Amino acid sequence: MSNATGLNCVECGRAHRIGEVEYICASCGGNLDVLYDYDRVRAALTKSQLADDRNFTIWRYRPLLPVEPESVVPPLSVGWTPIYDCKNLAERYGVKQLLIKDDGRNPTASFKDRPSALAVVMAQEAGASVITTASSGNAGSALAGMCASVGMRSVIFVPAYAPPAKIAQLQVYQAAVVVVEGSYDEAYDLCIEASKRFGWYQRSTGYNPYTREGKKTAALEMAEQLDWEVPNKVLVGVGDGNIISGLWKGFNDLLRIGFIDRLPQMIGVQSEGASAIVDAANGDGVVREGPADTIADAINVGKPRDATMAVRAIRESGGHGVKVSDDEIIAAIPALARETGIFAEPGAAATYAAFVNLCESGALKSDQRVLLMITGNGLKDVDSARKSVQAPLRVALDVQMEQLLRRLELGEV
Amino acid sequence: MSNATGLNCVECGRAHRIGEVEYICASCGGNLDVLYDYDRVRAALTKSQLADDRNFTIWRYRPLLPVEPESVVPPLSVGWTPIYDCKNLAERYGVKQLLIKDDGRNPTASFKDRPSALAVVMAQEAGASVITTASSGNAGSALAGMCASVGMRSVIFVPAYAPPAKIAQLQVYQAAVVVVEGSYDEAYDLCIEASKRFGWYQRSTGYNPYTREGKKTAALEMAEQLDWEVPNKVLVGVGDGNIISGLWKGFNDLLRIGFIDRLPQMIGVQSEGASAIVDAANGDGVVREGPADTIADAINVGKPRDATMAVRAIRESGGHGVKVSDDEIIAAIPALARETGIFAEPGAAATYAAFVNLCESGALKSDQRVLLMITGNGLKDVDSARKSVQAPLRVALDVQMEQLLRRLELGEV
Repeated sequence: MSNATGLNCVECGRAHRIGEVEYICASCGGNLDVLYDYDRVRAALTKSQLADDRNFTIWRYRPLLPVEPESVVPPLSVGWTPIYDCKNLAERYGVKQLLIKDDGRNPTASFKDRPSALAVVMAQEAGASVITTASSGNAGSALAGMCASVGMRSVIFVPAYAPPAKIAQLQVYQAAVVVVEGSYDEAYDLCIEASKRFGWYQRSTGYNPYTREGKKTAALEMAEQLDWEVPNKVLVGVGDGNIISGLWKGFNDLLRIGFIDRLPQMIGVQSEGASAIVDAANGDGVVREGPADTIADAINVGKPRDATMAVRAIRESGGHGVKVSDDEIIAAIPALARETGIFAEPGAAATYAAFVNLCESGALKSDQRVLLMITGNGLKDVDSARKSVQAPLRVALDVQMEQLLRRLELGEV
Repeated sequence: MSNATGLNCVECGRAHRIGEVEYICASCGGNLDVLYDYDRVRAALTKSQLADDRNFTIWRYRPLLPVEPESVVPPLSVGWTPIYDCKNLAERYGVKQLLIKDDGRNPTASFKDRPSALAVVMAQEAGASVITTASSGNAGSALAGMCASVGMRSVIFVPAYAPPAKIAQLQVYQAAVVVVEGSYDEAYDLCIEASKRFGWYQRSTGYNPYTREGKKTAALEMAEQLDWEVPNKVLVGVGDGNIISGLWKGFNDLLRIGFIDRLPQMIGVQSEGASAIVDAANGDGVVREGPADTIADAINVGKPRDATMAVRAIRESGGHGVKVSDDEIIAAIPALARETGIFAEPGAAATYAAFVNLCESGALKSDQRVLLMITGNGLKDVDSARKSVQAPLRVALDVQMEQLLRRLELGEV
């Protein structure tokens, strides 16, 4: 048996035993938070054991995950993505340290491989043969890839605006793909309805209580990779709010088992076109459904499904929300790539735009260690990346060399 | 000083001291092979030291690389990509073991990050401020990404048929991009001419002697990840021939320092539309320029620039070449993805097509351990991937559930 001991409703607080419910609160339908026996976790997981562990995947933290000890996990190598210490940028922007964790290096090129790997194990433990999710693209391709690796069937509901590369991933992995002529929020409702009707295992964010547990592994890694000295501030893009609540859960788990002695502030980043959680976190704490109109598909959410815990993460941590414009997001893609070699998709590059804004407004001080969470690879959405770069130079085979140099504007090199 | 001791011409055999020439043979213009003092390598690199080394990048093998001890390497985390042991596929196809190494997990999503990272160090050692390469796409985006990470300028020459995602990467990384209205072979000649004229550091494959050294790191990793028991056969896509010659160099280095006690057979995979090296290796050993007409842009080479060493690797190892059709390559993309969760670009999926062909023809025996080298991520060329998958199901918001199920053809689940 795992170290998970129960499931508490994040809305009404009702406690559930493991196995009592599959997804949501039996009283109010709220999302559930997984509880653990931290004494047992402490006995099973030590820093020195981790130092010797050559399993560089999310599964190195198995005592902090809700999976059964005997469960087989998908073979794809998920997690332990690099953290880069960007000294030049830290100096230019006047912070003590700028760290960037690149989760675009996961198997299907996004952060969502973490919760999807875990969800596949939970679905197998539940005896399911089909698993479904609503997704703006990344969660779906991650789930489809994980399912392919273990021979499960997946049904993925995506809005019609999902970038072509993400839909292509779904098709290549043989998911049954349902492109919904509507928003992510509408695809979500349709997915929930279908899974209830047909008995498919439901992985969707904010409904399945285990996605947050998969997502928290990024926080566990961050802390370990930084030798248990967590940053002062963690900036991450926010859509449903489940990544930021997952990271916060991970840091709190580590505090509970004594691996770290303080918590970072969580800075949620949204687009001006879809900012329900930032507005709530910076305002009265109450989340109101709002528009979903940003080019950053991964955070294009008007009705966030993990809003309560996301706002709690931001406010409990002493953090805040930041809004950036779509123009800033698009400009941040090449800006980040040119400084670091990291090519991020819009929803991830938004964190860099927010970092620059915070520095320029003086909100980040010189004693701060700041981490940007890059949640998806830029190859997932090439069309958006192209919007802020110059067209390449096209030349015929008989081009003259001097003319070539002039046209490259490299005359002075 | 590094452990490299000289450069021998692979065509005429002429020996050069380090520093005597920068790129090619002073006598015949042939490509050069880097020599090492293997006694010094043996003193500097031991298996037990590797077992304790937590630097999981290509730089863990630094004593076997031509870089100076004090040289700073690019910060991006290159190499130590996962190897998957695909038991189901091995059983289905009747081989002892099927291993797949996924180099699409590198920073810019291809194998080419290995030689490009090394080339950037060599360029910096040479005092260059601009570095250039010809590329069908991956070498260019890798070089552009590495240059961005260290603040160097890059000039990339690509043929007009390069996939949009690869060109977008170049632009995002702020390379000066020259799209040549011609073939890769023609872009190559233009790149060499420009670098001679303007004094740019030249990274192009088959001209720069160090790319092979960067590429060999994949063989070093393979051996270490497999606990120094190398596979019987390594299948890899062949364009210029520099990857297969690099892998062969790596295995031979390991044999020389006593880390392994036998060598694998090298199986070169090409498309029927561009097969100069396979034709030579399976024929009289003489490479003749041929057509370059395959959908797999990464191996679409008519005039291979590292042909001599590629053919030597195949023939010395007791291996052979395999040709697959473009239809087989395209079909192999979803076939591989659905079995393993690995989404490969065409030039990489070709190895899976070749594996299936070899198994079905009885050429691979039940006692064989076979490794497929996946050299690029499928997100690099989504258009090709789409050619062999069904269109997704599009539904309106008011879709009826029973109709949805029927249209998904999931009736029986």
